Amino acid sequence: MAGAPTACVLIIGDEILSGRTQDANLKYFAARFAELGVRLKEARVIPDDPDVIVETLNAARARYSYVITTGGIGPTHDDLTAACIARAFGRKIIRHPEVVARMTAYFGDRLNEARLKMAEIPDGPDVSLVESETTIAPGFRIENVFVLAGVPSIAHAMFEALAPQLKGGAPMLSGNVGANVREGDIAAGLTAIQEKYPAVAIGSYPSMRNGGFHTSIVARGTDRVEIAKVLEEVASLMRALGASPASDP
Amino acid sequence: MAGAPTACVLIIGDEILSGRTQDANLKYFAARFAELGVRLKEARVIPDDPDVIVETLNAARARYSYVITTGGIGPTHDDLTAACIARAFGRKIIRHPEVVARMTAYFGDRLNEARLKMAEIPDGPDVSLVESETTIAPGFRIENVFVLAGVPSIAHAMFEALAPQLKGGAPMLSGNVGANVREGDIAAGLTAIQEKYPAVAIGSYPSMRNGGFHTSIVARGTDRVEIAKVLEEVASLMRALGASPASDP
Repeated sequence: MAGAPTACVLIIGDEILSGRTQDANLKYFAARFAELGVRLKEARVIPDDPDVIVETLNAARARYSYVITTGGIGPTHDDLTAACIARAFGRKIIRHPEVVARMTAYFGDRLNEARLKMAEIPDGPDVSLVESETTIAPGFRIENVFVLAGVPSIAHAMFEALAPQLKGGAPMLSGNVGANVREGDIAAGLTAIQEKYPAVAIGSYPSMRNGGFHTSIVARGTDRVEIAKVLEEVASLMRALGASPASDP
Repeated sequence: MAGAPTACVLIIGDEILSGRTQDANLKYFAARFAELGVRLKEARVIPDDPDVIVETLNAARARYSYVITTGGIGPTHDDLTAACIARAFGRKIIRHPEVVARMTAYFGDRLNEARLKMAEIPDGPDVSLVESETTIAPGFRIENVFVLAGVPSIAHAMFEALAPQLKGGAPMLSGNVGANVREGDIAAGLTAIQEKYPAVAIGSYPSMRNGGFHTSIVARGTDRVEIAKVLEEVASLMRALGASPASDP
């Protein structure tokens, strides 16, 4: 798994940190990154604060192969992301002629200064638009940073638009097996299995199901055969306790 | 709002970054922090990687008044949080006698080394347990860091157990008003309102409702009267466009 490209997601928005809004983008991006062979290493939720956005973006883009931001690219005063990205890269911000032309055609005499803000992106020959049929206002790419909308339907569509640009490693595969056992009863056996298969990451997730203890074991890695071996050994552990292991879809 | 205590949430868990699991703690904590007058400034989702946990924890505890971690305090090999917190603080890890006694009584001959791991917390006279009736294994507090379970029902209960220990400032209040208008049509008016009421943070959140454009405006601050004034001025903007503004519950 060493050497696979890495990624960080920056969720920009007071609405997440205030408890108003449940984030609905991270899980989608995370699952897609796994399929694409990019290792999502971190996600950060930060406020609509220019200094924080610039500092966090610069730290993330230096550390990870790819950075995806969501939120803050609309027409209102609290949409600060594009200007902050330009500042972080030391670029000027321009009104992208192609987007202005498209908005002029679409909005007619309802085009105004606020909407033209949605055509503003950092300057540079390496900057490209991230288009989506879900909105007239594009996201954009600058170097290893992709800047997307926050509205989930648009953010997901923009992710699919940029996905072909990501250079992934081996896809991260996973499987699971669960049973009505308590974690503490299989922990020692799990440790032994983890030591036997170091290239597979084994996660143990307890929950309550129908009023009883349930443990779900997830095995992740790039080798389907190794994952299957891990899950079969885990299932044996569970059966030895009298449980009936099964996989969740 | 200056001077109010701040907080950061660290969500520790490969299961969030792999796309397997939807986080179900951040929104709860965020809403409660707002009520308690603590400003949640950041949330970070990080993997089950000791070096990353230690580095991130040390950065967060130096920067924010309070840090809350979730995840990684169970009995299995992938539960690394308590050991990492001890390392970050340069403390030894000990088996807390009170927790060991309680587990001995509860588990009887099913008590094993894995379960005893759940009694391990950093050493020090300032370290205290965070108890919850939802589980026999406690969270703990060390200095300004609270270490909680990841399972949402337990995490939420532990948050309520620690909440009385938080020194908050003025509660962050909020209200909202929405209508079937497009953000771009009210953006200029919103900017003017934001400039008139700098102590109120005004957020604009577009969505599709019943196939049409909807914009919800959220006003947040510590002064209920100011918030009400902002929302009334926003409602006037919306009515001027022929829309019928209303609040979401």
